[in-house]
Parts: sequence; C-alpha cells; structure tokens
Amino acid sequence: MKKISKLLLLGASAILLTSPLSAKTIRWRMALSWPSNLTPLSSPPMIVAKLVKKMSNGKFIIRVEGAEKTKAALGVLDMVKSGSYQIGHSGSYYWIGKDPNTVWFTTVPWGMTTSEQYAWFYYGNGMKYMKKVYDKFGVYNFPGGNTGVQMGGWFRKEIKTVKDLKGLKMRIPGFAGKVMAKLGVNVTNIPGGELYTSLDRGTIDALEWVGPAMDIKMGFYKVAPYYYTGWHEPASEMQFLVNKKAFNKLPKKYQAMLTTAMKAAAADMYIENFAKSVTAWQKMKKEYPGIKVKTFPVPVLKAMKKATNEIMQNYADKNALFKEIWTDYKSYMKKARTWTMMSEYYYLKASQEVETGE
Amino acid sequence: MKKISKLLLLGASAILLTSPLSAKTIRWRMALSWPSNLTPLSSPPMIVAKLVKKMSNGKFIIRVEGAEKTKAALGVLDMVKSGSYQIGHSGSYYWIGKDPNTVWFTTVPWGMTTSEQYAWFYYGNGMKYMKKVYDKFGVYNFPGGNTGVQMGGWFRKEIKTVKDLKGLKMRIPGFAGKVMAKLGVNVTNIPGGELYTSLDRGTIDALEWVGPAMDIKMGFYKVAPYYYTGWHEPASEMQFLVNKKAFNKLPKKYQAMLTTAMKAAAADMYIENFAKSVTAWQKMKKEYPGIKVKTFPVPVLKAMKKATNEIMQNYADKNALFKEIWTDYKSYMKKARTWTMMSEYYYLKASQEVETGE
Repeated sequence: MKKISKLLLLGASAILLTSPLSAKTIRWRMALSWPSNLTPLSSPPMIVAKLVKKMSNGKFIIRVEGAEKTKAALGVLDMVKSGSYQIGHSGSYYWIGKDPNTVWFTTVPWGMTTSEQYAWFYYGNGMKYMKKVYDKFGVYNFPGGNTGVQMGGWFRKEIKTVKDLKGLKMRIPGFAGKVMAKLGVNVTNIPGGELYTSLDRGTIDALEWVGPAMDIKMGFYKVAPYYYTGWHEPASEMQFLVNKKAFNKLPKKYQAMLTTAMKAAAADMYIENFAKSVTAWQKMKKEYPGIKVKTFPVPVLKAMKKATNEIMQNYADKNALFKEIWTDYKSYMKKARTWTMMSEYYYLKASQEVETGE
Repeated sequence: MKKISKLLLLGASAILLTSPLSAKTIRWRMALSWPSNLTPLSSPPMIVAKLVKKMSNGKFIIRVEGAEKTKAALGVLDMVKSGSYQIGHSGSYYWIGKDPNTVWFTTVPWGMTTSEQYAWFYYGNGMKYMKKVYDKFGVYNFPGGNTGVQMGGWFRKEIKTVKDLKGLKMRIPGFAGKVMAKLGVNVTNIPGGELYTSLDRGTIDALEWVGPAMDIKMGFYKVAPYYYTGWHEPASEMQFLVNKKAFNKLPKKYQAMLTTAMKAAAADMYIENFAKSVTAWQKMKKEYPGIKVKTFPVPVLKAMKKATNEIMQNYADKNALFKEIWTDYKSYMKKARTWTMMSEYYYLKASQEVETGE
C-alpha cells in the first residue's frame, strides 16, 4: 500500500499542478469608455465576458466596469497600459492627442466603409499599422465592433449652400469638428446631458451623434427636423485594448478564447447597431412624420472633402508615418471602392430603379 | 499513511473522472459541399477546426473532409442527419428539393443584402424560422459565411433588351435559372470543368458563377467581355449543419467554443471574399482592359423582378410556411432597406458625386 500511495501521491500532484480543474481561476477587469448599459457600444465587452466564461468553464472571468464606475471614460488606454485593467473597450481616435495615427483604426471623414476597412485591416496593411502604432503603448489592439455609416447630424434648418454653415452653432467633436470649423461653423462642445435642451432652445443649431439606434434615446428628432446623411464617420470601429504582459501570461487556450470571442463580438455589434437603427428609425418616423432625411448639396460636400484633405495633409506634413499610412489607405480604398460600387451599390441602385420605375 | 492514501485515492479518482486532462479527446468529422481548398467557401470549416483545437488545448478535434474525399457534395445534409458526420458546411438552398423553405437561409433574387439579412436572422425572425425549417432534419443550422452580392455573370454579347435573352444559352442554376427560363433563356447545366471551353467555343453564350474572387480561377474573363452586376444572389449565406444528438452530447464549454468559432469564421469569410474580389478584379481588369462592367437595362431588370415574384407566389400558393416566411421577409426587408439607403447607399453616392463633380 505504501508504494501505491506514493504513486498516487505523485500522480495526484501532477494532476493538481497541471489540470485546469485545480488551476487558479484567472480574473481580469475590463474598463469601458462608455456606461456599461450603453448598447450597442457596450455589447461587445459584455459578450466577450460571457463567452470566455462559458468556454473556460468559469475559469477565465472578466469583470466589466463601465465609465459610470471607473469615472475615467478617456483614461482607458492609460489604465490598460499601466495594467490596472488587463483589458479595455474604447475607440482608437480618442488617443489622437497621444498619436494622430490612432485615427486610422476608427474611421476618417470620406474614408472606407465597414467592409472595405475590415478588408484593409485583415488583407491589406491595416493590422500591420495598428500593431506598429500601438506597440509603444504596451498594448495589443483588436477591432471591437463597428457602427457602419454614422448620420451627419440633426439640424434645425436646412443647409442649402456653403454660406448656411457660416456661424452655425454645432456640437461636432473630433476630426469632423475641425472640418466644420474650416467651413465657418462655430463648433462647440456641450456635455451629453445638456444637448437636448441646447438644441431645443436654439443654444445650438445642430449636432452630430451616431445614428438612429443611439440617437433615439436622446430625443433629438423631436426638436430638429433635418436628419443629414453621413460623410464624416463612414465606419467607426471600436477597439479592444489588451495589456501585453497580461495577454502573454495567459495560457494559450485562453488567448485563443479571448481573440475568438472578440472577433465574434465585433461582428455582432455591427449587426446589433444595424438592426436597432432599422427599428429606431421606423419609430421616430412614425412619431414625427415631419423628419426629413437630407443629403448635403454637392457643393457643400465638396467643401467638406476639400477641408478634410487639407487637415489630412497638415498631419502628413508633420508626421512621416501618417503620410505613409494615408498613402496606403487611399490606395487600398480606391481598389476596394471599385468593388463596392460593382457589387453592393449597383445592386441597391438596380433594386431602387425596379421599384420606382426610373 | 493509510488514511492519507485513501483520501488521495478518492481525490485522484475524482480528478481523473472529471478533469479535461484525463477526458477522452472528442473527435468529429466535418463534410463539405466543396473541395477543401476552394477558398473562400472552404475557409470557415478550416478556421472552425483550427480554433476549437486551440481553445480546447487539442481535446476537441474536427477533421475536415472536402467533397474531393466524400464524393458527395450534395449529400452533406443526409450525412449529418444520419450522424455519419457530426458537422457539415454547405449552402441551405441546395436542399430546396427537400423543402423550398431552405432557400430563405441562403439568399433569394432581389432579396436582402448581407447586413440586412444578418439583422433579420438575429434581430428579426430569421433564426426562428431557420430552427423551424431544420428541426425535422435532426440538425441545428448556423450561418456559415456570406459572399455578399454575387455578380450577374459573364456574357459574350451585350444585353440591350428583354428580347436579347430569348434563346440565349446560359448556365445559371437554381432559382435564378428558373427566372431566366421564364424570360426565354435556354438554361443549361454544364459541369464546372467544361464551362470555360463551352463559353469560349460559343456552346453557351453566358454563365453565372460567383464574383471576382472565385471567377478569376475559372478564366471566364478571357473569353466573355461583359460582366453584369448582380440581382439574383445578393447575400448568399453558407451554413454549418450540426447533428443534434452530437451537439447535445458535447460538454457545454465545447458547445460554446464551437458556436463562437462558427460566428467568428462566418464573419471572416465575408471579409476574405470581399478582399479577394478587390484584388482579383484589379488583376482581371489589368490583364483584359476590355472587360466591361454592365448593369442590365431597367426593363430587363423589371422583367426579372416580375418573373421572380411569380415563382415566389407559386411556392407560396402551395406551401403555407413559405407564404408566412415570405411575408415576414418582405416586411423586414422594406424597413431594413430604408436604413441601408439612408446610411451606406447615400454615403457611397455622395462620395462618388464629390469625385466626379456630378
């Protein structure tokens, strides 16, 4: 019996040392740039946490902490870099102050659509550049869900000429805000909670948010009847940021679970936002039949395009990597757009012509 | 020592019984409706096999067997139903002879685009109907990758009027073939290996295949200069078929790995096909600058739409569930298309107008 017990002791120790059953549960925390209930933006983190828990049989747990808890919506990159959170969910273009090249992994005005951009990420040089830009932050960056084409915003009055933009008070942050400022728009920043009242009272004349799925919660359609189609955020991609050391320390199988879950969750977010936009738009339109969907007149669009190019050129003049990525991006986009037009665009056009008889 | 050894014995047994380390490796086989090297169609099965192996630490192995091995491309549903294969990768519309309602989970002429269809699957009634239709076959059905809008085919001569279709010899299978036959096309079926020669020699005047990514391998662009834009397969979704008993017997964590991997792989296929179409089209166009992309004239498109509706109505008259799904599909599509036009379509249109100045 002594021999057997010794053998068992050895065997049991070996199992105890290596078996996932006895392995310590891995616990991570994920910081978000949005409240944890702000779907669809907060959906990918929730889905990733749920999936890795299921796939690991409860041995890999990610606790999701929204901005309502961290109180640091724009601190996500720093918190993941420092390791106080192992993972984050945010938007790459929030870090434009740290490095202008982070913008390429969210979206740029007049840029690629969602399909084109994913093709560039995975089959062009997108992921290569993403790695290059994020290396210095000590984090891995993964696509984290896309909004598709965002709407151009809610306007109290119709925009008929470039002149109508002069002096217009508009809340439109980021890159698009810089473009609008170049066209004479008085760009203001107002906290989300005050936007509805500001628009209602005419403190501002217009604002940009996301699209029907998220705009409906804000109620803008009740006070501004012109809903302009998009030009400035054609394919906003969210991002998962993962602390390198934390990721490299994960057992290989958990790394695979995490990356697979992130990819599935990113794909889901696009569909969720699309489906919720479908429903939200029906609801808004039914409640306020007076809402008008408008596209900016071509001369206005051209002025926006020109201003966009000037801003891009300005970054490119100062930053060699920006110039390199911009060149690569434009070259890929040109090829990709040819295919988008041949496939989806002409199908949609033909379908419309068959219906309307034109 | 006796007590300790007994405890160890119990402990070790418990671990041996439940630990994945000691658990038997699960081995599945997956049958494909295509050769295992026919990317991008064969990519999702390969990716799923690779991912579940990684995530399970080699304990869940799926051996992929292409049509070159099974010699039964169209036997996949039967083989998965019988349990001789636990999983398959195919196209739902191949089973239209067993149940016309299987068509809804691939694509229909003049139907939804990829985004619209995924929204219907996951946020409309699509997956509910999928479950209902596939229940009787003893299999679970999961989306398995999408081709996006397929091209309308390669034509030796330009199609200017509906009359030009009369007597035209064309290889175009399935639903679209029925539509073309209604318009007077002499629809023929020719094995894939003989297509190029048949088109070159004028044995046929036209044929439909997929899109640039797959068409380039067939060489059609060398012998037929008119490449028509799509109308008949706007969003062909592949399918994973899983034997119910086999799936239900899987440990929960492996079920989660499999479903997550299938979702990630399905999303990947769309991007792969998109990216490869971009590259293939550039190559074809460079090699044969004479290729012309054409859209059928509106009267031809209208005739195709009318014929499509007649065929659909004919199915609906005979099959109550077909009628029910068609009604639901049309209703969802109408709402979804409104959003597609507001977002992606008008963005693409504006981008084009800004470039061309129109």
